[in-house]
Amino acid sequence: MAGSDVILLDFWPSMFGMRVRIALAEKGIKYEYREQDLQNKSALLLEMNPIHKKIPVLIHKGKAINESNIIVQYIDETWNDKSPLMPSDPYARAQARFWADYVDKKVYDASKKIWVFTGEEQEKGKKEFIEIMKVLEGQIGDKPYFMGESFGYADISLVTFYSWFYTCETLGNFSIEKECPKLIAWAKRCMQRESVSKSLPDSKKIYEFWNDMKSKLGHEHVPEVENFGSFHVWFSTG
Amino acid sequence: MAGSDVILLDFWPSMFGMRVRIALAEKGIKYEYREQDLQNKSALLLEMNPIHKKIPVLIHKGKAINESNIIVQYIDETWNDKSPLMPSDPYARAQARFWADYVDKKVYDASKKIWVFTGEEQEKGKKEFIEIMKVLEGQIGDKPYFMGESFGYADISLVTFYSWFYTCETLGNFSIEKECPKLIAWAKRCMQRESVSKSLPDSKKIYEFWNDMKSKLGHEHVPEVENFGSFHVWFSTG
Repeated sequence: MAGSDVILLDFWPSMFGMRVRIALAEKGIKYEYREQDLQNKSALLLEMNPIHKKIPVLIHKGKAINESNIIVQYIDETWNDKSPLMPSDPYARAQARFWADYVDKKVYDASKKIWVFTGEEQEKGKKEFIEIMKVLEGQIGDKPYFMGESFGYADISLVTFYSWFYTCETLGNFSIEKECPKLIAWAKRCMQRESVSKSLPDSKKIYEFWNDMKSKLGHEHVPEVENFGSFHVWFSTG
Repeated sequence: MAGSDVILLDFWPSMFGMRVRIALAEKGIKYEYREQDLQNKSALLLEMNPIHKKIPVLIHKGKAINESNIIVQYIDETWNDKSPLMPSDPYARAQARFWADYVDKKVYDASKKIWVFTGEEQEKGKKEFIEIMKVLEGQIGDKPYFMGESFGYADISLVTFYSWFYTCETLGNFSIEKECPKLIAWAKRCMQRESVSKSLPDSKKIYEFWNDMKSKLGHEHVPEVENFGSFHVWFSTG
């Protein structure tokens, strides 16, 4: 597989982009990484994702695949000779999809409230975030991974948020580990995989990035609701 | 396949429930249909979907599968001997998933604004709805179905909303066909399939149901935002 056959349009602190990086690493696919400037979107990004205009985009042999969870499934189905990311049983596959979908519907929106807001809104976000994490922790239980012994699709969907936990904890002044020790044990277990540890940026760099961005956008404390939208555009890709 | 092996917990006007009915009909699966009272949820529903507490739920040999698009994929993968609903090529499969995901992210929220609101908010909803429909129409183009010659997953995700078009048009006083003639031609093509026509309730019954519900909830004209939430609970299942 030549590197140029596979191109990833991405933005380094994106938890959605990280999902694709992990899946490509699990499969051992060489690819060209192209960092995108999301405040000044490239013609290539707009051409390859005309509907949502968001990263990550995987370009394989000139064809674009969009939406992180869909890309991860595409990678799993295309390079199906090693490291299956989906269980083989249809019922287990439905369960893995259910949990990845739950992560998509809940985690980003709740965590965003912690980094964007202060005061009462932030407290609401923390409460919501912890409730969601407890549901996820309950599902993992005492198993090594979401679906049992094998790392896969549902783990990938959630573990990328771990790189933002330090930012959540520092800005929200709380400990996720204190609330959800088994979830953190699971995240650390995932981080022992090279595919994960090499795909997630350093947590403190993400914290610095976020502080810089808040300063640049001119609202160090409580951003306006109008600006809230632009944060969303920076990261959200489903 | 004995009927009691497969049970569907559903609510007749739900566009999400209809998706599952179509997929089961395409595969020729006999099942037990159990209508749910969503204002007084059954112990079975709460047990089978403890996370979202929503219909539809498919119970197959005692195991629950939740979230309509995930259920449709489960049905396709479990009864894989006839009527494939997903394309066989991974890239085409990613495209089908992309459009079903686009429908999920956009169509319900926009259409809801048309039936729930009046005045300016409704006009905004209509504009948004038509824009989304034009994107979907553009994707279908001159092909018989979303992915070409075969009816499948992406078609199922969208066509169930067709049963609510009469309600949208009557309450919003506009014609979807005038704006998107090719989309309506596609919907009528889908309706020629028995799996679709038998799974979608009569459009006028849905309109009556909706008017009745608005009256019962005590806001015939502009519902309060607090009530808006309860409409969501009635239908939304992803």
